[in-house]
Amino acid sequence: MVQSTKSLAERVANAEPSAVARAISRIEDGADSATELMKQIYQMSRGGLVIGITGAPGAGKSSLVDKLALLFRKRGERVGIVAVDPSSPFSGGAILGDRIRMQTLGLDENVFIRSMATRGNLGGLSRATVDAVAILDAAGYSKIIVETVGVGQDEVEIVKAADVSVVVLVPGMGDDIQAIKAGIMEIGDIFVINKSDREGAYATEKELQALLSLAERSDDWDPPIVKTIATENTGIGDLAEAIDRFQQTQRRTDIGNERRHAIARWRIIELLREQLLSSVLNSNDCASALERLADEVATKRRDPYSAVEELLKASPNR
Amino acid sequence: MVQSTKSLAERVANAEPSAVARAISRIEDGADSATELMKQIYQMSRGGLVIGITGAPGAGKSSLVDKLALLFRKRGERVGIVAVDPSSPFSGGAILGDRIRMQTLGLDENVFIRSMATRGNLGGLSRATVDAVAILDAAGYSKIIVETVGVGQDEVEIVKAADVSVVVLVPGMGDDIQAIKAGIMEIGDIFVINKSDREGAYATEKELQALLSLAERSDDWDPPIVKTIATENTGIGDLAEAIDRFQQTQRRTDIGNERRHAIARWRIIELLREQLLSSVLNSNDCASALERLADEVATKRRDPYSAVEELLKASPNR
Repeated sequence: MVQSTKSLAERVANAEPSAVARAISRIEDGADSATELMKQIYQMSRGGLVIGITGAPGAGKSSLVDKLALLFRKRGERVGIVAVDPSSPFSGGAILGDRIRMQTLGLDENVFIRSMATRGNLGGLSRATVDAVAILDAAGYSKIIVETVGVGQDEVEIVKAADVSVVVLVPGMGDDIQAIKAGIMEIGDIFVINKSDREGAYATEKELQALLSLAERSDDWDPPIVKTIATENTGIGDLAEAIDRFQQTQRRTDIGNERRHAIARWRIIELLREQLLSSVLNSNDCASALERLADEVATKRRDPYSAVEELLKASPNR
Repeated sequence: MVQSTKSLAERVANAEPSAVARAISRIEDGADSATELMKQIYQMSRGGLVIGITGAPGAGKSSLVDKLALLFRKRGERVGIVAVDPSSPFSGGAILGDRIRMQTLGLDENVFIRSMATRGNLGGLSRATVDAVAILDAAGYSKIIVETVGVGQDEVEIVKAADVSVVVLVPGMGDDIQAIKAGIMEIGDIFVINKSDREGAYATEKELQALLSLAERSDDWDPPIVKTIATENTGIGDLAEAIDRFQQTQRRTDIGNERRHAIARWRIIELLREQLLSSVLNSNDCASALERLADEVATKRRDPYSAVEELLKASPNR
């Protein structure tokens, strides 16, 4: 093929959308197959801003992300969107969101949208997501928005790995909101109350202010609360302004370094976890042993702990 | 100590609550320290029914679980509750829920309640959760309810590992509900519409029926939709009846075996993943190398992939 005269990494750096898509597919297949590609990609890092957006289901994150992307586009920036959808492996739930998006953003060649989902046993969703972000960065997207559904552990980690983390709430989410708020309080650099024309918006804002006044941050950033109605494009400018302001503050302080160290540490561990597991499971001996051992555990002839001991004995790499 | 004449596993089998609590703490500390304990525990398996309950934040899962537990207690059964709270590591979000629960269930010595959260780098929340369930089973709790907040990957896996999976929805959760429903459609054996006196309950039920009619199950079970108002104790008997009926159906069919194989396979992999990672990171050489490499990755002097290669070279076990 003519294309093979240029490496995939070079074509990514050239901002060819098809190369970006192919590179992301490769990193989704597994860390092993992507190692050489990613080593090259990381050398092409261009310093795009990574914006993590999370919040409970029903908070209107997708609309918010779309409107924010449109605003960045009007400024002339290229925008990458990575939608993390952990529920997809079961029935392809990501597709719905993609289809809706195509109507507003999909025809703009300076917007790249990709949904990520776990595949198979080895997991690696968070590793694949940060790799996808690195690919978009290498391709010159200056704003990279990572959107996560839900409040699971993986999603929290993914949002923590962003340069700036935005937590989206809506008025009147019910009793569990307290617990969620407690859990995400420490990861939010900016809080958005979306659907802020709804009943209970004022109460939610007061409650959030009270919670924020109790939270301890290691930097002197005071997380702002931005009120939006994403579907009406209200408050999106305020959100963009808050993001810019946080980015400027981070550049001035040492706290950014601590945060980058923590993120790097987590990324190394995630990658290590995935590679160790695949080094065992990708051998033929182990693959067949796994099925036999799973049968024995399922029928209570064996416990999972001794099954793992036997699996490790069967592994050629150990 | 006098206690040490009996092993911890024996005391668990004796249904001593303090031993159960201590055993769960040990498995939370890590798979390595718990290996011998868990090998004994798995031999004491008594076949308690594991009920997984999941759903979006705000769906009223906790109230539903509490009322279901009270119903089982009235039947004379002993009930274990494991509340999985992935957001806890950040600020102890689990505590709130526990405190509320103590008011209704906490004084009953035949109810054991425990919140689980990830600790540290090695993860293992899902492994620790299934181990906690095995401990409660060995201690003779005949109904073990596992409640998960959110729709993240870990939570989905935990609920899939239950004997029966209950998905809780509420009327009018907004746009994202379609995506969530698509994701959890295949894991739900029973669907609950809680807060069913709210506006939109009928529409939610119709929508759910339509989605369920499209879903393909490998067994011939037709997942029922149960309407509840947990706070008023309405519909809890219907839910318990649906659970009993599913259990009887599963016992009659071969599908249960396939499902148990898939669960066992997943448990082995989770445990393997955790043990492999700790075998590398628990060595002193690797621990110091990790911090240095994290600094290099944070300052972009190195990419995460070559950092992992170097970490593996420093590992004494490889």
